[in-house]
Amino acid sequence: MQILKTMRTIAVAKGDGIGPEIMDAVLNIFNAAEVPLDYKVVDMGKWVFDKGFSNGMTVEAQESIESLGILFKGPMETPKGKGVKSINVTARKTWNTYANKRTFQTLYGVDTVFSKAGIPIDVTIVRENIEDTYGGIEHMLTHDVALSRRFITRPGSMQVIKYAFEMAKKKGAKRITCGHKANIMKITDGLFLEVFYEIAKEYPELKADDVIVDDLCMKLVTRPDVFDVVVLTNLQGDIVSDLCAGLVGGLGFAPSANIGDHISIFEAVHGTAPDITGKNIANPTALLLSGLAMLRHLGYMEKAAIIENALQYTLESGIHTGDFGNKEIPSVNTTDFAQAIINNFGKIPSHNPRPALANHYVTPTMFKLQKNPMLMSQEMQEEMIVGVDMFVESNEQPLAVAEKCLKHTNGIFKLVTVSNRGTQVWPTGSVFTNLVNQYRCRFEGVDGTVITQQEIVLLYTRIMADFKICSTELLNMWNGTKAYSLAQGQ
Amino acid sequence: MQILKTMRTIAVAKGDGIGPEIMDAVLNIFNAAEVPLDYKVVDMGKWVFDKGFSNGMTVEAQESIESLGILFKGPMETPKGKGVKSINVTARKTWNTYANKRTFQTLYGVDTVFSKAGIPIDVTIVRENIEDTYGGIEHMLTHDVALSRRFITRPGSMQVIKYAFEMAKKKGAKRITCGHKANIMKITDGLFLEVFYEIAKEYPELKADDVIVDDLCMKLVTRPDVFDVVVLTNLQGDIVSDLCAGLVGGLGFAPSANIGDHISIFEAVHGTAPDITGKNIANPTALLLSGLAMLRHLGYMEKAAIIENALQYTLESGIHTGDFGNKEIPSVNTTDFAQAIINNFGKIPSHNPRPALANHYVTPTMFKLQKNPMLMSQEMQEEMIVGVDMFVESNEQPLAVAEKCLKHTNGIFKLVTVSNRGTQVWPTGSVFTNLVNQYRCRFEGVDGTVITQQEIVLLYTRIMADFKICSTELLNMWNGTKAYSLAQGQ
Repeated sequence: MQILKTMRTIAVAKGDGIGPEIMDAVLNIFNAAEVPLDYKVVDMGKWVFDKGFSNGMTVEAQESIESLGILFKGPMETPKGKGVKSINVTARKTWNTYANKRTFQTLYGVDTVFSKAGIPIDVTIVRENIEDTYGGIEHMLTHDVALSRRFITRPGSMQVIKYAFEMAKKKGAKRITCGHKANIMKITDGLFLEVFYEIAKEYPELKADDVIVDDLCMKLVTRPDVFDVVVLTNLQGDIVSDLCAGLVGGLGFAPSANIGDHISIFEAVHGTAPDITGKNIANPTALLLSGLAMLRHLGYMEKAAIIENALQYTLESGIHTGDFGNKEIPSVNTTDFAQAIINNFGKIPSHNPRPALANHYVTPTMFKLQKNPMLMSQEMQEEMIVGVDMFVESNEQPLAVAEKCLKHTNGIFKLVTVSNRGTQVWPTGSVFTNLVNQYRCRFEGVDGTVITQQEIVLLYTRIMADFKICSTELLNMWNGTKAYSLAQGQ
Repeated sequence: MQILKTMRTIAVAKGDGIGPEIMDAVLNIFNAAEVPLDYKVVDMGKWVFDKGFSNGMTVEAQESIESLGILFKGPMETPKGKGVKSINVTARKTWNTYANKRTFQTLYGVDTVFSKAGIPIDVTIVRENIEDTYGGIEHMLTHDVALSRRFITRPGSMQVIKYAFEMAKKKGAKRITCGHKANIMKITDGLFLEVFYEIAKEYPELKADDVIVDDLCMKLVTRPDVFDVVVLTNLQGDIVSDLCAGLVGGLGFAPSANIGDHISIFEAVHGTAPDITGKNIANPTALLLSGLAMLRHLGYMEKAAIIENALQYTLESGIHTGDFGNKEIPSVNTTDFAQAIINNFGKIPSHNPRPALANHYVTPTMFKLQKNPMLMSQEMQEEMIVGVDMFVESNEQPLAVAEKCLKHTNGIFKLVTVSNRGTQVWPTGSVFTNLVNQYRCRFEGVDGTVITQQEIVLLYTRIMADFKICSTELLNMWNGTKAYSLAQGQ
C-alpha cells in the first residue's frame, strides 16, 4: 500500500434542508475510515441568499473554494423569484466545471424494475456542462417567434470528451459511446461527434462508437447492460443521466461530480426535502456515493473501496432508511444507517465487490489564475465570407417577401433562398407549408464572389427600408466548403 | 351503429425493404374486416430516388397524396449521400404535419422489463413536428464555434398543443402533461409552457400539469403508469417517444401518426430490415397499429376496435413472428400472423379490450390551398427596439474586447455586458471562466433610449472596424418587458 504524501483540505458546503444531516453522516463515515481530509466548512445555499448575498455564497466561501480546488456540497435550494439564477448552475458556470460525471450502478437491496428483471446496471454518463442551450442566450424575434442559441464549440467538446476517455481508461472501461443527434443537427452535434472520433484515435484500447440519442434512450430501457461510458452534449446528457438515475432507483442513489481543470464539485443532486428536515431520517446514499467519487478523484482509492464495500454490504443486509428497501424490515435513521456502514468496514459484499486500486496522490491546484484561459483548437482554414442570412419580420406571402428583397440585391448579392421555420418557400416550396411572421432571407455574392462586411452593412441598410431585421448570421466558406446548412427543400 | 356516409380513398406508399410485405398483410386485414377504404398506391421511397426523383416521390404521387389528404406509409430508406434529405422528414415538412402522435401500450404476449414487473403502460406522446432545432438552421460562427438556431413559435405551439388537448379529450384521457425544459430555456420552452396553460383553460375536464423533461424520463422508467397524454417540443418529444417505445418492446410495437390540417401521415417508424426482405417473416404489428390510428382518425371506430381486439387476442394466445414472443412456441410468418388476426375477429382479449366507440364521418379535405397559411397569434404589444447583441470573433481577453467596443458606443449606446458562452466576463466575471474565440457584446441605448435600425447599422459599421461580426440579434422590449435573457452573472 502506497502512503499518501499529505493530508488535504477541501471545502464543504452542507447545503439546505436535509443537507447538514446527510453531510454530517457522510463526514462521520469518512472520519471513521480515517480518510486523510480536513474540512473547511463554507457558507453557501439558500440561507446565504437570505442574508443578502446575491449569488448564494459569501466572499470568504468563494475564496476558500477557489484556493482549495475541491467543493463537497449538499443539496441546495435557490430562492424563487425572477432574476435569481440557480446556485447549482452558478457554481458550475463560475468555476467552469466542464464535465458532469454520473455513475449509475445496481445496488443490491434497492429494488427497481430492472433489479427485479435481473438486469445489472453499471453505466457512467459524462455530460458536457457549459454549452448547448444552457448558455441561456434567448431572444424573442417577433411576438410569435422565440429563439434559443444552441452552440457547441470545438475546444469545449475536446475538454469534455478528453476527460471522458481518460476517465474511461482509468476505470478500465471497455467501451465508450458518443450519444448525439448529428443526423438532425449536422453542424453542431456533427462537430461534437467529429471531435469524439478524433480523440478516440488516441485511445485504441477503448472501443469507441456512437448512437443517436433517441435510440440510446430506447436501448437504455431495454438493454442498459450493453453500455459502459456514454458522453453527450449538455441537454441530451441531462435527460439521459436522469433516465439512468431512474434505472437504479432514483436521485437518492445517483452521485454527481462536476469536473473542471481548477475546481471540481461533488454533490448530491436530489432535493433538500424540507418536509423531513431535522428528523434525522434522510437517506445519505447519493451524497456518500458522490463523496466516494471525490475520494477516487483525489486518489484515495483504498479508502473509497473500503467504504463502498461497506455501503454495499449494508444495503445487501437489508438495512435501509425509510425511503427504500424491504418494508417488512423496519427502517433505521440517518445516524444509524451511517453507523451500520462504519460497523461493516472490512466486509465484502456478495455482489460487485470493489477492488482496492492503488492510491495515487493528486497535487492540489495551488496556483492563482492570472487571466481567463482562452481555449483554441489549432484549426487553421482558408476562410472567406460568402453571404449573409437576414431574419426579417413579415406576415406577407413568400413571393412578396422575395420581391422586396430582390429590389435590394444591387448587383453584388443574389437572393438564394427564402425559408420559413427552416423550410424553403421561395423560389420553390409547398403551399402546405404553414408560415410564421419571420422569414430567413439568404443572400450570397453573385457568382460566388467573396463578400466584405462593408457590403453586408450596405445590404442591411437597404433591406431595413422594407423590413425589421431581427437577426443576422454571416455565411462563411472554409477551405472551399460551406460552413452553414441548406434550407429544407433548398 | 351509425352508418358511414361514404367510401373513402387514401394514398398508400408501401415503402422499401419489408415495407410491401407488411403493408400487404395490413391491407389484407383491413379488407377482411371490410374497412370502407379504397387504396391508391403511390410511388415513394428509395426505389423512386433511384429512378432520379430527387425528393423520393413522383409528381403523380405528390398530387395524389395532396388531393386525398391521407398517406398510409410503410418504412422507407433514404439514399446515403450529402445533400439528400430524409424522405420521412421531407414528407412531414412538405405537408406541415405539425403533430406527431405515438401511443404506447402494453401488449400482452410481448415481454418487456415492465411487463415482467407487472407495470402496465398506456401513454400517448404528442411531439411538435416542425420547430426546434429540426429547422436545421446551423452556422459555423468561427472555426471553433457552431450554432444551431432553436426556435419555438407561439402559433406553432398552439397548433400542436390544441391538437393534443382535443385528442386527449376524444380518447377520454384524465390527465395531460407538458414536458419541457423551461427552467433552463426560459424564453423558448417558457413560451411553449405558457401556451400549454392558456389552452388548458379551455379544457377544465382535463387535469393539466407539467414536468421537467429530465424528471419525466426518470419517472417514465420507474412509474410509467402515472402518465396519460404528454405533449413536448420536437427534440425532447423525439427522445421521450423512443424511450416509451422501449418500454413496450421497441419500434416493432410503436405506431406513429403525423397530423396536419390538410394532410396526415400514418406510418411505421422502424427500419426497412433489408436482411429479412422478401422472406415473409417480418412483424407487421407497428404498421397495423399505425393503420388503426388512421382508422380512428377517419372515424371508423367500430372497425378499429374489432381489429385491435383481434390483434390483442392473437398476441395473448402466444402467436408471434420470429422477432418476439415465447421462443418455446414456434413463430409464424407474416401472412399467417395476419390470417390469425383475421380468424380472431370478434374475439375479446382478456386484457384491455377496446370498446367500439361510435363511428363518425370525417370530411375529406377536398379543397386546394391558394396560398400558404400564415399563422399569427393575436398578441398585440407595445414594442420598441432597445439595443443589439453583436457576436464577434476574438481571441483576446474580455477587458480588451470591452475596451474596443467602448470606443464605438458614441454617445448613443452603452456597453452593458460582454459574455462568452453565455457567462458574463465583463464588467465582472470569474477568472475561471474558460473562453472560446467568440464573444457576445450587448449594446443598449443610454438611459434606456429607444434605438432605431439606422443607429444599429452605424454601430455595426464602427464595430466591424475592430471585429468580424458573426451574428446580430435585436433586443426588443414589449409592453415594458425585456424580450431577451440576461447573461449568467449579469
